[in-house]
Amino acid sequence: MIYNIVIKDVEIITEKNNEVYNIGITGNKIAYIGQEEITGTKTINGAKHIAVPGMVNAHTHAAMTLLRSYADDMMLMDWLENKIWPVEALMTKDDIYWGTMLATVEMLKSGTTTFADMYADMDKVAEAVEETGMRASLSRGLIGLVPDSAKKLQENIQLFKDWHGKDNGRIQVMMGPHAPYTCPPDYLKKVITAAGELGCEIHMHLSETQEEVNTCLKENGLTPIALMDKLGMFELGTLAAHCVHVTDNDMKIMAAKHVRVAHNPQSNLKLASGIAPIPAMLQKGITVALGTDGTSSNNNLDMLEEARLAAFIHKNQSKDPTVIPANTALQMATVNGAKALGFENLGEIKIGQKADIVLYDMNKPYWYPRYDRASLFIYAANASDAATVLVDGRVLLEKGEFLTIDIEKVYAEANKCALRLTK
Amino acid sequence: MIYNIVIKDVEIITEKNNEVYNIGITGNKIAYIGQEEITGTKTINGAKHIAVPGMVNAHTHAAMTLLRSYADDMMLMDWLENKIWPVEALMTKDDIYWGTMLATVEMLKSGTTTFADMYADMDKVAEAVEETGMRASLSRGLIGLVPDSAKKLQENIQLFKDWHGKDNGRIQVMMGPHAPYTCPPDYLKKVITAAGELGCEIHMHLSETQEEVNTCLKENGLTPIALMDKLGMFELGTLAAHCVHVTDNDMKIMAAKHVRVAHNPQSNLKLASGIAPIPAMLQKGITVALGTDGTSSNNNLDMLEEARLAAFIHKNQSKDPTVIPANTALQMATVNGAKALGFENLGEIKIGQKADIVLYDMNKPYWYPRYDRASLFIYAANASDAATVLVDGRVLLEKGEFLTIDIEKVYAEANKCALRLTK
Repeated sequence: MIYNIVIKDVEIITEKNNEVYNIGITGNKIAYIGQEEITGTKTINGAKHIAVPGMVNAHTHAAMTLLRSYADDMMLMDWLENKIWPVEALMTKDDIYWGTMLATVEMLKSGTTTFADMYADMDKVAEAVEETGMRASLSRGLIGLVPDSAKKLQENIQLFKDWHGKDNGRIQVMMGPHAPYTCPPDYLKKVITAAGELGCEIHMHLSETQEEVNTCLKENGLTPIALMDKLGMFELGTLAAHCVHVTDNDMKIMAAKHVRVAHNPQSNLKLASGIAPIPAMLQKGITVALGTDGTSSNNNLDMLEEARLAAFIHKNQSKDPTVIPANTALQMATVNGAKALGFENLGEIKIGQKADIVLYDMNKPYWYPRYDRASLFIYAANASDAATVLVDGRVLLEKGEFLTIDIEKVYAEANKCALRLTK
Repeated sequence: MIYNIVIKDVEIITEKNNEVYNIGITGNKIAYIGQEEITGTKTINGAKHIAVPGMVNAHTHAAMTLLRSYADDMMLMDWLENKIWPVEALMTKDDIYWGTMLATVEMLKSGTTTFADMYADMDKVAEAVEETGMRASLSRGLIGLVPDSAKKLQENIQLFKDWHGKDNGRIQVMMGPHAPYTCPPDYLKKVITAAGELGCEIHMHLSETQEEVNTCLKENGLTPIALMDKLGMFELGTLAAHCVHVTDNDMKIMAAKHVRVAHNPQSNLKLASGIAPIPAMLQKGITVALGTDGTSSNNNLDMLEEARLAAFIHKNQSKDPTVIPANTALQMATVNGAKALGFENLGEIKIGQKADIVLYDMNKPYWYPRYDRASLFIYAANASDAATVLVDGRVLLEKGEFLTIDIEKVYAEANKCALRLTK
């Protein structure tokens, strides 16, 4: 048979030996992995490269690229109230589009093929995802404390109707209630009811800071996790970002209700929010994925940095260097992300999986010597060596060149938007 | 006048505005920075690049590149006794040379121009430094508990006589007593006496783990820092690696005796050693530099990762996101490193400074938009974008191509050494 695409002579991250393989792709799926000679309509030379599943950024606010380096090293509320929120209030649909395009360029060039986004004007984010060919789970950020909270909910409902399952299932939509401190229980009930009617899952910031938890306990007598459970949110399926300050009881609920966690270690450190008890979550069988958060609190979209940091910081936090070995960190950045976002057959280089594959150039000093590929990738490699990127069986980046994006235009337009917003 | 080298139209990390500059280099020094048209024997086009001082890796074991990915995610003593030490015992001078060459390739390609190394067979390390054109402070790792401890001390003395101040001062030599738990006080007295006679400084692992401190307290009634002070080490000038578990009294001694610290945040996390109290050290006026440690406990030599992690982890540890702002992290990775290693007029892009300059390609998504250059470099950029690297006024890497190193040969030879050592 003739495959659509054949990747020849490539090493594979999960294989233990030094051999090279041929990968055959039919439609949007991996149809062959082996060492027989196979032919394809298109052939990609994979020599000196390693195939890794496209990474999944399980929590970000893509268009915040426009605010990168605008405000750093500040106290949280000073930063939000005096820097971030005033500029965000000025953002137009055009800004969201170009900010997201800048983010897609950065993600694809660093081996991330899927992301979960929460922001405003998500129709423009969906357009960017559709055009570039990435895979995404999109949610409209919902705030209950503002006069137009009902309108925002309506926008999220419309987003679901317009985009959920579109582009061969590349785009999915969730509801995006922002956080317990911006969404009172009455508003959350409306969100949950609407989501239940649509069959739509939830993406929400939960238990990011101790202050959030304290306030929620004071106002509701429950932790944010316990409150959401009581409101029935977790019956819908929930992607919970952060979960830094969760109790043992919270984690019991999360495991029982299959809450999926997006752990954002860099953002949590940069904003001094704390370190989430990830090893305990993994032990309880909770699906933990990784996210970058927005580029104001990171300040890039490099998922390999998150995987490396997750492995390192929890070893130290647990006083045990065997915690989160390289393979676990790799799974968190890939297949766990796919599960967390609700994409099926995604996140592994296996027959039958969706063909979201990244080929990294291994002809770099930190890829020598090669005793253990997962260790090399997680602890030593550089995400910028992503040379060729496929999403859903389609080549988006080939030998460092974008096939679907005019990057010089993206840089120029995003820069123009940013300068106008902050002048 | 005609400069040796002129870098034209380049942005500079420490300049606040969006303008570009011309940098004139005479001999090994920066002789001009400004916006006048100047001419040079050699001209480098700096357009779309940013000039950053070459980073200083203040603590590593370069040849351990040969053990990269050989043994990870293990308990410390299991890792050392069953994996690292048995292989190190087999290393020949040739292995040390090629392992160090692999490290120099990796460091230069990621914008590091100077390093402090402690290992065996340091004459081969010195040869690699001399050939490649890097700048380094070298020390022979000394262990007092072995039969040939006197021979090792003699090798360090000879290393000082052969190499200290060589190559226009690019190579300096320190004494390298390994650690309190491998060097008993009697041996340290011999090392200190010999160093005092030579006028040689000390590079030593100090207070890396709580266990080390506990053992030292039990055996000597003093912390490692207080013991070294009592032995007179700090009068010589000391570069102390790690200093994770130091007391307030230790830090008072370190400040008073001008002990310089090499902070290795990634290694400390990966080996679950703890988090050093760096903000307290900085507040006390202690010079804190950054290091990668060896690539078995990191697993790369990327100094920008260390600077980023130092900024992030201490914000969280201090529960204060204003701690270690981007500029401080930048200084730790550059000028503080120069001070820690004892190199004068090094680590800043200023007239009169040594011309150790790295030009990073800014035409990358994470360099947009550009509100704050130090923030962009420390929080968002990628060290692999180092395109052109000068050390001591000499171009070693130009537009990504090495002028002094045959990298394919380095990869092949280092790989061959590694496979032989571990087969």
